[in-house]
Amino acid sequence: MKKLDMMYEGKAKKVYRTDDPERLIVEYKDDATAFNGEKRGTISGKGVVNNRMSNHFMRLLEEAGIPTHYVQELSDRETLVKAVSIFPLEVIVRNIAAGSFSKRYGVKEGTVFKKPTLEFCYKNDALGDPLINESHIYAMELAVPSELALIREYAYKINSFLKATLQQCGITLVDFKLEFGKTADGTVVLADEISPDTCRFWDAKTGEKLDKDRFRQDLGNVEGAYQEMARRLFG
Amino acid sequence: MKKLDMMYEGKAKKVYRTDDPERLIVEYKDDATAFNGEKRGTISGKGVVNNRMSNHFMRLLEEAGIPTHYVQELSDRETLVKAVSIFPLEVIVRNIAAGSFSKRYGVKEGTVFKKPTLEFCYKNDALGDPLINESHIYAMELAVPSELALIREYAYKINSFLKATLQQCGITLVDFKLEFGKTADGTVVLADEISPDTCRFWDAKTGEKLDKDRFRQDLGNVEGAYQEMARRLFG
Repeated sequence: MKKLDMMYEGKAKKVYRTDDPERLIVEYKDDATAFNGEKRGTISGKGVVNNRMSNHFMRLLEEAGIPTHYVQELSDRETLVKAVSIFPLEVIVRNIAAGSFSKRYGVKEGTVFKKPTLEFCYKNDALGDPLINESHIYAMELAVPSELALIREYAYKINSFLKATLQQCGITLVDFKLEFGKTADGTVVLADEISPDTCRFWDAKTGEKLDKDRFRQDLGNVEGAYQEMARRLFG
Repeated sequence: MKKLDMMYEGKAKKVYRTDDPERLIVEYKDDATAFNGEKRGTISGKGVVNNRMSNHFMRLLEEAGIPTHYVQELSDRETLVKAVSIFPLEVIVRNIAAGSFSKRYGVKEGTVFKKPTLEFCYKNDALGDPLINESHIYAMELAVPSELALIREYAYKINSFLKATLQQCGITLVDFKLEFGKTADGTVVLADEISPDTCRFWDAKTGEKLDKDRFRQDLGNVEGAYQEMARRLFG
């Protein structure tokens, strides 16, 4: 597999073409952004943690029956993935109120929901990734009902699986953001990443934040939080 | 039925208690507000048009099998209604992109949807009535699934009914906002009003706006639009 030209550079990752049109190489950066790109910084070692953690979860999820874009870890920052066309949707599952949910609805951070919530945001930086509902998604033709049904089913399953897995490491899964894509043959697969950039992880005993909120909220010891999450998962 | 003290004064209506705890009197004002109360004004004769039009539609909807809060028109501005506890939700049905939808998702005003969309907003002035989805509504315990299922069913039926009725008067129903409540015995009923304050009405031939957008967007002839809508419906 040959790494060719860069196809796309995102906020936290670069994506390269390969000599196989159905495979891409993702390279994780240490760059961090927040608040729709208004806040920028670097979190040393983040790319290595996120690459390893995301691949770990993707492998476990594949075993649990969730199709993902993961193919093979190539180096400490690089991973081979399936080429997919991404649905322009952020899929957010919440177990506990925090972040934009708390702000939007005036619900105290830390409020535990009886059942997890699931929401979609329209991936569009210029519009600020606005919340969107299923009827809007169909009206705007961003996905069809059968695709959205699969995405919902996978998202709830991923929540149950990750919640249980993280609980064993003393971590509470507060919420997380997923992205899904379609491979050349139309299969809906989990794409993007699962990491402290895209999840809220709280220490189950102390409530300490071990995710990108340390960067967003200037809580200090940002690098330490990413390393602590790696230590909890990989010892 | 005796009109007692004022219970509540809203942006466009006053609500009075009566000597029957299960009945209230609504009085329509000429006051108009927009953009979450930032813009204020008076639309002369609006209260009379909205009272008559809303009662007309509520009577027709009752006949079509939709339970409403309507009991009896008392005067040109006053109506007797059932006392209900209002769900803190704005229920918005859209046939054509306009207003907040166009702004939020970058969709050109006038784009016709293949199927109508339905959305909920959390009625909370301090938070700016944010968009909310069903899983959030359950997490925040604003309604239960059986209530929301009825509200959805009624909202789509009301759209079909109003769209057809208005088409006969040369009016295109672009979108509208409903509110629902629960009577003392737990029945879900349509409440609030159906008027140019809560709907977007466009002349089917010219596309001329015949609703509160004339006030919101300073298009002039605001009073004339309300009178024209009354003329189309009542001759």
